[in-house]
Amino acid sequence: MRFDEAYSGNVFINSHPSYEESSVVLYGMPMDWTVSYRPGSRFGPARIREVSIGLEEYSPYVDRELQEVKYYDAGDIPLPFGNPQRSIVLIEEYIDTLLADGKIPLGMGGEHLVSWPVMKAMAKKYPDLAIIHMDAHTDLREEYEGEPLSHSTPIRKIAEHIGPNNVYSFGIRSGMKEEFQWAKDNGMHISKFEVLEPLKEILPTLAGRPVYVTIDIDVLDPAHAPGTGTVDCGGITSKELLASIHAIAQSNIEVVGCDLVEVAPIYDHSEQTANTASKLIREMILGWM
Amino acid sequence: MRFDEAYSGNVFINSHPSYEESSVVLYGMPMDWTVSYRPGSRFGPARIREVSIGLEEYSPYVDRELQEVKYYDAGDIPLPFGNPQRSIVLIEEYIDTLLADGKIPLGMGGEHLVSWPVMKAMAKKYPDLAIIHMDAHTDLREEYEGEPLSHSTPIRKIAEHIGPNNVYSFGIRSGMKEEFQWAKDNGMHISKFEVLEPLKEILPTLAGRPVYVTIDIDVLDPAHAPGTGTVDCGGITSKELLASIHAIAQSNIEVVGCDLVEVAPIYDHSEQTANTASKLIREMILGWM
Amino acid sequence: MRFDEAYSGNVFINSHPSYEESSVVLYGMPMDWTVSYRPGSRFGPARIREVSIGLEEYSPYVDRELQEVKYYDAGDIPLPFGNPQRSIVLIEEYIDTLLADGKIPLGMGGEHLVSWPVMKAMAKKYPDLAIIHMDAHTDLREEYEGEPLSHSTPIRKIAEHIGPNNVYSFGIRSGMKEEFQWAKDNGMHISKFEVLEPLKEILPTLAGRPVYVTIDIDVLDPAHAPGTGTVDCGGITSKELLASIHAIAQSNIEVVGCDLVEVAPIYDHSEQTANTASKLIREMILGWM
Amino acid sequence: MRFDEAYSGNVFINSHPSYEESSVVLYGMPMDWTVSYRPGSRFGPARIREVSIGLEEYSPYVDRELQEVKYYDAGDIPLPFGNPQRSIVLIEEYIDTLLADGKIPLGMGGEHLVSWPVMKAMAKKYPDLAIIHMDAHTDLREEYEGEPLSHSTPIRKIAEHIGPNNVYSFGIRSGMKEEFQWAKDNGMHISKFEVLEPLKEILPTLAGRPVYVTIDIDVLDPAHAPGTGTVDCGGITSKELLASIHAIAQSNIEVVGCDLVEVAPIYDHSEQTANTASKLIREMILGWM
Amino acid sequence: MRFDEAYSGNVFINSHPSYEESSVVLYGMPMDWTVSYRPGSRFGPARIREVSIGLEEYSPYVDRELQEVKYYDAGDIPLPFGNPQRSIVLIEEYIDTLLADGKIPLGMGGEHLVSWPVMKAMAKKYPDLAIIHMDAHTDLREEYEGEPLSHSTPIRKIAEHIGPNNVYSFGIRSGMKEEFQWAKDNGMHISKFEVLEPLKEILPTLAGRPVYVTIDIDVLDPAHAPGTGTVDCGGITSKELLASIHAIAQSNIEVVGCDLVEVAPIYDHSEQTANTASKLIREMILGWM
Amino acid sequence: MRFDEAYSGNVFINSHPSYEESSVVLYGMPMDWTVSYRPGSRFGPARIREVSIGLEEYSPYVDRELQEVKYYDAGDIPLPFGNPQRSIVLIEEYIDTLLADGKIPLGMGGEHLVSWPVMKAMAKKYPDLAIIHMDAHTDLREEYEGEPLSHSTPIRKIAEHIGPNNVYSFGIRSGMKEEFQWAKDNGMHISKFEVLEPLKEILPTLAGRPVYVTIDIDVLDPAHAPGTGTVDCGGITSKELLASIHAIAQSNIEVVGCDLVEVAPIYDHSEQTANTASKLIREMILGWM
Repeated sequence: MRFDEAYSGNVFINSHPSYEESSVVLYGMPMDWTVSYRPGSRFGPARIREVSIGLEEYSPYVDRELQEVKYYDAGDIPLPFGNPQRSIVLIEEYIDTLLADGKIPLGMGGEHLVSWPVMKAMAKKYPDLAIIHMDAHTDLREEYEGEPLSHSTPIRKIAEHIGPNNVYSFGIRSGMKEEFQWAKDNGMHISKFEVLEPLKEILPTLAGRPVYVTIDIDVLDPAHAPGTGTVDCGGITSKELLASIHAIAQSNIEVVGCDLVEVAPIYDHSEQTANTASKLIREMILGWM
Repeated sequence: MRFDEAYSGNVFINSHPSYEESSVVLYGMPMDWTVSYRPGSRFGPARIREVSIGLEEYSPYVDRELQEVKYYDAGDIPLPFGNPQRSIVLIEEYIDTLLADGKIPLGMGGEHLVSWPVMKAMAKKYPDLAIIHMDAHTDLREEYEGEPLSHSTPIRKIAEHIGPNNVYSFGIRSGMKEEFQWAKDNGMHISKFEVLEPLKEILPTLAGRPVYVTIDIDVLDPAHAPGTGTVDCGGITSKELLASIHAIAQSNIEVVGCDLVEVAPIYDHSEQTANTASKLIREMILGWM
Repeated sequence: MRFDEAYSGNVFINSHPSYEESSVVLYGMPMDWTVSYRPGSRFGPARIREVSIGLEEYSPYVDRELQEVKYYDAGDIPLPFGNPQRSIVLIEEYIDTLLADGKIPLGMGGEHLVSWPVMKAMAKKYPDLAIIHMDAHTDLREEYEGEPLSHSTPIRKIAEHIGPNNVYSFGIRSGMKEEFQWAKDNGMHISKFEVLEPLKEILPTLAGRPVYVTIDIDVLDPAHAPGTGTVDCGGITSKELLASIHAIAQSNIEVVGCDLVEVAPIYDHSEQTANTASKLIREMILGWM
Repeated sequence: MRFDEAYSGNVFINSHPSYEESSVVLYGMPMDWTVSYRPGSRFGPARIREVSIGLEEYSPYVDRELQEVKYYDAGDIPLPFGNPQRSIVLIEEYIDTLLADGKIPLGMGGEHLVSWPVMKAMAKKYPDLAIIHMDAHTDLREEYEGEPLSHSTPIRKIAEHIGPNNVYSFGIRSGMKEEFQWAKDNGMHISKFEVLEPLKEILPTLAGRPVYVTIDIDVLDPAHAPGTGTVDCGGITSKELLASIHAIAQSNIEVVGCDLVEVAPIYDHSEQTANTASKLIREMILGWM
Repeated sequence: MRFDEAYSGNVFINSHPSYEESSVVLYGMPMDWTVSYRPGSRFGPARIREVSIGLEEYSPYVDRELQEVKYYDAGDIPLPFGNPQRSIVLIEEYIDTLLADGKIPLGMGGEHLVSWPVMKAMAKKYPDLAIIHMDAHTDLREEYEGEPLSHSTPIRKIAEHIGPNNVYSFGIRSGMKEEFQWAKDNGMHISKFEVLEPLKEILPTLAGRPVYVTIDIDVLDPAHAPGTGTVDCGGITSKELLASIHAIAQSNIEVVGCDLVEVAPIYDHSEQTANTASKLIREMILGWM
Repeated sequence: MRFDEAYSGNVFINSHPSYEESSVVLYGMPMDWTVSYRPGSRFGPARIREVSIGLEEYSPYVDRELQEVKYYDAGDIPLPFGNPQRSIVLIEEYIDTLLADGKIPLGMGGEHLVSWPVMKAMAKKYPDLAIIHMDAHTDLREEYEGEPLSHSTPIRKIAEHIGPNNVYSFGIRSGMKEEFQWAKDNGMHISKFEVLEPLKEILPTLAGRPVYVTIDIDVLDPAHAPGTGTVDCGGITSKELLASIHAIAQSNIEVVGCDLVEVAPIYDHSEQTANTASKLIREMILGWM
C-alpha cells in the first residue's frame, strides 16, 4: 500500500521498476571530495530526481515520450566520503557490471572525476570508443596541487588512456595554458567557447563509432546553471545545449553511455539548475536511447 | 498628511488616483491554489508593485512616458483561499464590471487559471476576439488529475469557448503529446520554442481584430525568470520578449485586454523576476494603450 | 540491483519495507491550498524524508533505536490540487483503512486542515478520544473569509465533533478574540504561550485515555522553525518541544495517532526546520510507539 | 472601486484612514546611508507593513484589539539618499508637526541615527523626557571615523542633549571601552546583556514621567532577528522582548513616543525579522497607546 | 601604499606584492550611500577579490597569463560612511597620486558615482581624454531629488567637464526622457540596447586617443548579473560583454584607466555576479594592459 | 610564516603583523572532504575573518580589548583537496612547529577531523593534557562506513591516545548507542544536552592542568548556528556558549590551545553563524589568553 510518490521523487520520473527489463540504467555518483573550489555536487543526483516530478513525459523536441524507453533508476552508488581512490574503484566495478549485463549507463554526478572510471570501463568494452566532452573547463591537468585524482584531471586521464585524438571537447573557456598546449601537441580536439556549430562539423567524422558523451553542467553560462561548483561567465545557453543534444540525436554516432555532472543544488535557490538537468536527462534518454 | 510612497509601493508606479478618469485598470489576481508544482504566485502582484518604484517612467523603446496613459491600480481582487470555483466567478464578475465601465483590463497573476474567467468575459464583449498566448506550456489539458479547474487548462477552455482557430500560442516548449495533437487536430496555432519570428508572421493576419494577450512569465528562460512555479529551460530571453511586445505595439491589432501571470517571488532571491515583470507591464502600457 | 539510497531519501530513515509487518504507518499529506498567508507546506513531507538521512538512529533522550519500532513510510497521499473537499475525503478514507488494519497513523503535513479528517477518523475508532494540540494558533475559526474548509478551522471542527472539553491546546499565542472566548465559553483547555509546564499538569488527568497529538511546527519560535507559513515570534524553543514530547512519553496516556504539520521548506534556506521536524518524528516514534 | 489590499500591504494592518481622527501616527524613516557595516534598513518599513497582513488584530498578551486604537500610517518620510544632514532636519521638522498636532509618534527605521532628530523634537515638548533604549550596541560614540552623524552616535547625542542621567540603556553587549566608561562617568544607566529584569527595577523610578522608547531590533539575538545590519550573538529572545514591552505597559510611565529601527529585510530570507517587527509594533500600539 | 583592509581586503589573484614595481594599480571604492534603490555595492570589491581564487590565471580569449602583467591590489580606499562629498575628494586625491606615480588605475565599485572623481583626475592628466561607458542607465541626471552627488549623475558630470562629444555610452536601456534629449542636444553618443556592434563602429574613430572605460555591471542582463542594485531586463549577455572587452583590446585606442562598478553581492546567492566581475577584470588586465 | 591565502586569506580583526612577537597564532584548516552530510566548512575560516570587521575590539564581558593580546593570523594551511591522510600530516607538522616556537594555537575549521592532528601534537608537548569538547555529536566512532579518517572519529582517536578519562564532552545530543556505551565503559565524561552547569562542576577538577578546548559550532542550536553541516535541534543558546567560555576564563585551568570548527557559511544567508564564530573567537582570545 505505497502511494505513487507524488512529491518525494526518490526515482527519476517514469523510471521502470525492473532492472532486468530495462535497457538503460540511471545512477548517481554522489562524490565531491576532490573539488578545489565549492563542494556540494554530492547532492546533485538526489535533487535532480526530486525535481523531475515537474517534467512532462513528452518531448516536443523529438516527439517522443518517456514511456517509449525502459530505463531503471538504480539510485546512488554508495561512495566512501573523502576517499577518491576507493570511490573510483567502486564506480568502475559498477559500470563493468552494467556493461556485462548489456545496459547503457547514464550517470549523474557528483564532481567530474567520477566520469574517469566510467569512461575507463567503457573503453574496455568498446576499443574504438570516442569521447564527446562538453564543459567550461579543459579538465586536462596531470594533477592538482600534487593530487593525481582531482576533478581537474578526468579528461587528461581518458585522453592518455584511449589516445588524445579520440577525445573531442566543446565549449571550453577555462584552463591553464599548458592544458591547451598539451591538447594541441597531442592531436586532441578542443572547440573553444562554442558547442553547437563545431559539434555539427565533428559529428559526421564520428559516424558509426561508439561514443561516450560527458556533459559538465558548467558548459552552460552561470545564468543558466548557477548551481554548480565553479561558475564561469561567457558560456552557452540552455537552448544551445538542448540543440547540441538533438544534433547528436540526429547524427549517425552510437551513444553507448553518457553522464551529466557537477550540479550542486545549494548554490541555486530557485532550483533552476536541477530542473534544467532533469530536462537535459529526459532529452538524452529520448534523443539517444 | 500622507507622504509619497517612496518605498512602500502599494500601487504600481505612476498609477492614476481616479478610477473614473482612467482608461486602463491594473489589478491583481492573487490565486495559486490549483498549481501542481510550486505555489507562491499569489504574492506576485504585490511584489511587482513594490519593485515598480525602481522603474524609470520613460521607455526608450517606444519613446513614451507613463504620464501619457491614465491607468488605475485597483489593488488585488480578494479571492477565497482554496476555492477555485468561487475565485473564478469573482474574477469574471469583476471584468464584466470593468468592461461595462469601458476600461481596458490589465491583470497580474497569480496562476494562469485566472486568465480563463477574464478571457471568457472579454469574449462576451468582443465576439471576434482572438487570443495571443506566450508561455512555456500548452495549458491545453482538459483536466489535471481529475480537476477541470487547474492551472494546466485555461487555454483549452478559451479555445473551446471561442474556437481553437482564434487562439495563437507562442514559445511553447512543454506539454503532453495529446495537447499538441489536440491543437493540431483542431486548427489551433502553436509556435514551438520561438516567439518573435512566428509572431511577426501572424500579426498581419490579425489586423483590425480585438486581441487579448496573455503572457505567462515562464515563456522566459529560467535564467531570465527564476521566480516562477515551473522553471523550464530552453526559453526565450527578456530581450526577445520585449521585442515581441514591441512587435505587437507596431502591428495593426487592437489589444483590448492583457495579463502577465505566474510570478512567484519566493523562488527568486535577487528579485529580478518581479523587476522584469514590472518593466514588461510598463512596456505593455506604453506600447499597447 | 538498487543501491541503498544514500542521499535520495525517498523514505524516512530506517522505514520498514513491509506494510503488513509494521505497527506504525508514516504518510504525507501534501496539501497547502487553503492557507491564507504563505503556501509551500505541500513540499514538507518530501523534504523531511530527504533530510532524515542526516539523523542518527539512536535517541540519547529515550535510549532507544529506530530498529526497535517497525514503521512503514507509505509515501504521500495523492491529493487533488486546489480541491480541499475531495482532499479531506481522501485523507479520511485512508486513515479509516489504516485503522481497520490496526496501524497507528503518523502523519506529516501539509497545512493544518489535513488533521481534521484524520482526527475525525480517529474519533470513530476511539469514542473516548482526547486531543493534545501544540500550536502558535488557536485554529478555532468557524470559517475563514467565508470558507469553512480552511487551515484556521481544524481544531474548531474536532472540538465540536468530540466535545470541546476533550481538546487541550498548548503554546497558543495568536488568534481572534472570539476564538479565545469560544474556547472559554465551551470548556476547552487553552494554555497560552507555554507548553511544557501546563502539559505536565494536564497529562495525569488524561491517564489511560486514547490521545491523538497534533503538532503545528509553528508552536516553535521562528528562530527554531523559520520554514513555515506563518512565523510568529514569542514561541517555544526546540528544547522545550523535545521535552514536551518526552513528557508525553513518560505519561500514562496512550498515543493512538499523531501528526506534525506546516513545514514549508522554501522559507528556510538552511533546512533547519525540516531537520528539526525529522528529529521530532524520530522522538515521536521512539517515545510514543 | 479600490479593493481591500489583501496582499499589497501598503499600510500597516488596520491603520485608520484619517490623520485628523488618529491619536497615533506611524511613519517610516527609510535611511541607511551612515551605517558602517551592512546597509539595507531603508527597506525595513515597507516590508514590515507588507507582512503585517499576516498578523491577527487581537493580542492575547494584553487582551486588546487593534480596532481599539486609532493610528494613522503616514507612509515613509521622503529622505534624500546619501544626505544625512538634510535627512535629519526633515525628520525633526516632521516630528515637530506631529507633536504640534497632538499626535503620538511611532517610527520605523531605517538606521538608528533616525532616532536622534525624533528624540530632539520630543525633548522640546517634554522637558522632563526620559529615554528607554533597548539595543545590542551602546551607540554612544562621539563620531565614527570622523563623521559626527553616524548610526553609532544617536544615544550619545540625546544623552548630551537631555542629560545622561535621563537615559536608560538595556541589553547592551557591544561597544568601545570608552563608551562604557563615558556612560559610567556621566551617570547614564547601562544594563549589560539583560533587559527584562533590570527594566523592572528601573520602571518604578520613572513613574509619571514622559518616556520615549527606542528599540533597535538587534537587541534580539540573531536567532530571533537575522535581518539586521549588525548581527551580534548573545542577545535576548523575542519572548523576553515581548515581556519587556508588556512590563512597560503595566508600569506607570507615560510613553509619549517610540520607535523600532534597523530591520534590514534582505539578510533574512524567511522574513521572520519583519514579521517579528510587525508583531512588536502591534504590542507597542496595544500596550502603550 | 597598502590601505587598511576596510572590507576584508584580501587581494585579487596574482596581485604583485610591490606597488613600486607595478604598472597597474587595482583598488576598491566601497561606497554605496547615494544609491536610490538597493544598496550593498560597498561589499563588491571584497567579494570580487574573494572569489578571484576560483579564476584560472590564463585567458584562452587573448592567450595571455596574469603573470605577464604587474598589477598591485591596493585594497579599498577608506571612505567615510554617509559622506559623499568627502568620499569624492578622497578618491580624486588617490587617483592624482596614482597618476603622478605613473600607474594605470583599475577601480572596483561601489556605486557609479565613484567614477566621477576618477574621471576628473584622469582628465587633468589627459586633456584629450575620451570616455567609453557601458551601462543600462544613462546616468545623465543633473541631480537626483535635489542631490547633485548621486549615482545617477556621474556621466553628466564628466560630459560637462570634458565635453559631451567625448563621451560614448553603450547598452543604455533606461533613463529619463530629458537625459536622452540632453545627450542628443549636446552631441553625446548613446547606443541604445546594444554594445558590441556600435562599439566596433566607434573604436576606429578613437584610434590613438587616451580612453577611460567605465563599466557598470548592470549593462549585463539580470540573468547574467543579478547581484546589483538596479536589475533591468533586456540587457546584454556576458558573452557580448567579454567580446566588447576584446574588441577594445584589438583596437588602437589607449586605455589609460578603467573601472567596473555596482556589484552588490547580497542579491546574488550563487555568487555568479562576483565571479563574473572577477573574470571581466582578468580580461581587462590581460586585454588592455 | 604567512601561508598563501588559499581561500581569500584576509586576516582576523586586529591581528598582529609579526609572527615572532605574537604569543598566539590563529590559523584556518579549510578541509571538509570526509563529511558525511553537508560539505562547505572549508570556507568557514575565510568568512569568519571577513565578517570579523564587524566586531568591536572591546569585550564588555571580560572588560578587555583585543589590543591587549598579541595574536598573529597565519591564514589557512594549504591542504590537498580530497586527501585526508596528507591533510592530517600537514596539520600535525604545522602544530609541531607552532609549539616548538612557543605559540598557543587557535584553529578554525573546517570539519572536526582537523582537531585530531592538532590534539595529537598537543599531547606530545603536554603529557598531562586534558580535552574539553563542546559538540552536538559524540564523534566517537571508530570508523565511518569503513573510513577510519572521518569527521565522526576525532574524539575517539584522541580519547584512545591520551586515555578516555582525560576527555570531557559537553552538550552532546547525537550519536550511536555504541558510542555512548564506549564512553561509559571507558570512563570518559559525557554531559548530555547541557554545557554550562556540568562544565562548572568539572572545571575545579581540572585546576592547574593544561587543557585543549575544541568547540564544534553545532553545539549551538540551529537557531543560533544554521550555517553548519549537520543541524540538530535541541542545542544550547549562544548566551550559554558565551557563558561557558567565560566560566573557563574564570577557572584555574590553563588553556594551551583551542579551536572552533564546522562553520559552513553557504547554509546561512544572514551570515549570523560566521558573525557568531568571530565573536566567540574574540572571547576565546580575551578570556583565555
